[in-house]
Amino acid sequence: MKIAMLMYDNMTALDLIGPYEVFRFLPGATLHMVSKRPGLVRTDAGLQLLNSEFAFADISQPDILFIPGSTDNTHVMQDKETLAWVREAHSSSKWTTSVCTGSLILGAAGLLRSVRSTTHWAALDILERLGAQVVTERVVHDGKILTGAGVSAGIDLALTLAALEFEETLAKSIQLSIEYDPQPPFDAGSSQTAPSDIVRAVRARFRPT
Amino acid sequence: MKIAMLMYDNMTALDLIGPYEVFRFLPGATLHMVSKRPGLVRTDAGLQLLNSEFAFADISQPDILFIPGSTDNTHVMQDKETLAWVREAHSSSKWTTSVCTGSLILGAAGLLRSVRSTTHWAALDILERLGAQVVTERVVHDGKILTGAGVSAGIDLALTLAALEFEETLAKSIQLSIEYDPQPPFDAGSSQTAPSDIVRAVRARFRPT
Repeated sequence: MKIAMLMYDNMTALDLIGPYEVFRFLPGATLHMVSKRPGLVRTDAGLQLLNSEFAFADISQPDILFIPGSTDNTHVMQDKETLAWVREAHSSSKWTTSVCTGSLILGAAGLLRSVRSTTHWAALDILERLGAQVVTERVVHDGKILTGAGVSAGIDLALTLAALEFEETLAKSIQLSIEYDPQPPFDAGSSQTAPSDIVRAVRARFRPT
Repeated sequence: MKIAMLMYDNMTALDLIGPYEVFRFLPGATLHMVSKRPGLVRTDAGLQLLNSEFAFADISQPDILFIPGSTDNTHVMQDKETLAWVREAHSSSKWTTSVCTGSLILGAAGLLRSVRSTTHWAALDILERLGAQVVTERVVHDGKILTGAGVSAGIDLALTLAALEFEETLAKSIQLSIEYDPQPPFDAGSSQTAPSDIVRAVRARFRPT
């Protein structure tokens, strides 16, 4: 079970580390962090926080391809080398997955046309413009493509994948290992439940006009 | 708002990245990843995945001190240099915080005697032996010390801290930014709700006899 997780500058760290913390418990899994140039990766908080050990040429034919999101990944959506690697990895993957605006990269690579998929709530219109059939669910499963909503949805997505690829017992044991018994102190995690003034303010920050 | 987050080899990545993804939105926050020797940090999945930019000598008097956990951090609990830095940072911190077995490091530093605190469900007895007043809650608040349960509890802990230190509106806007509207596919995230055979199996893996 070869798992390739894309890294790029300005990515959101939790988008990747959530699924990583689940995938690492999959039987026989080998995790490969892959980027255009291996080495330190700067997150969208401006820190040299993550490290990639592999270049695109090092990793081909992963069983699981994973793409994280970012507060702004326009530079990746326009990078021909990255999109070519994503398309190639997808062509033989068993599962192609993304969290948050990682799906915009899949969309830019032309992989989501008419595919039921999702993204961060503030980027749903961009996903639609890329030809996807947009769904506002936490985890969306269409064929071999699994896409998740914003940032923290990656944990839900990876547990869903663990159950689909292996069995529910494994997914439950991973969930217990990471004590994933979420108890958010507020009910403001979705644009449906958060106060409307907060939704407006957060949307403005993510989508400068 | 100077935030110091400890890193060490064999740490659990999500323990730190969950709170990081919340703390980075705190007004005026500067995040410092601190380790005994700056540079790449190997996680408990065996990957050179994280990077620390500061040594202990570089960072003193943080406003928030944060300690992540690990599947095994005995080597840190026994490291005098690390414990001395933790004690010193705690002596002037506004908040001292941990997730998962990070609290065992606080306990080994002698900071949790009779303090209401928690840890990963499979390590509660160790925390008790360190003199803490053990509580089985998701996030435990005693004076300036905030401790969280296993791994994924760090997101709940950091949002709780954002509301305590600033205001609920800020915490809610961060929760919405990271779309923290958790929908675990199973109800197996706590040792109270997971099937008993899974609890036994996971406990055995975390606590080799």
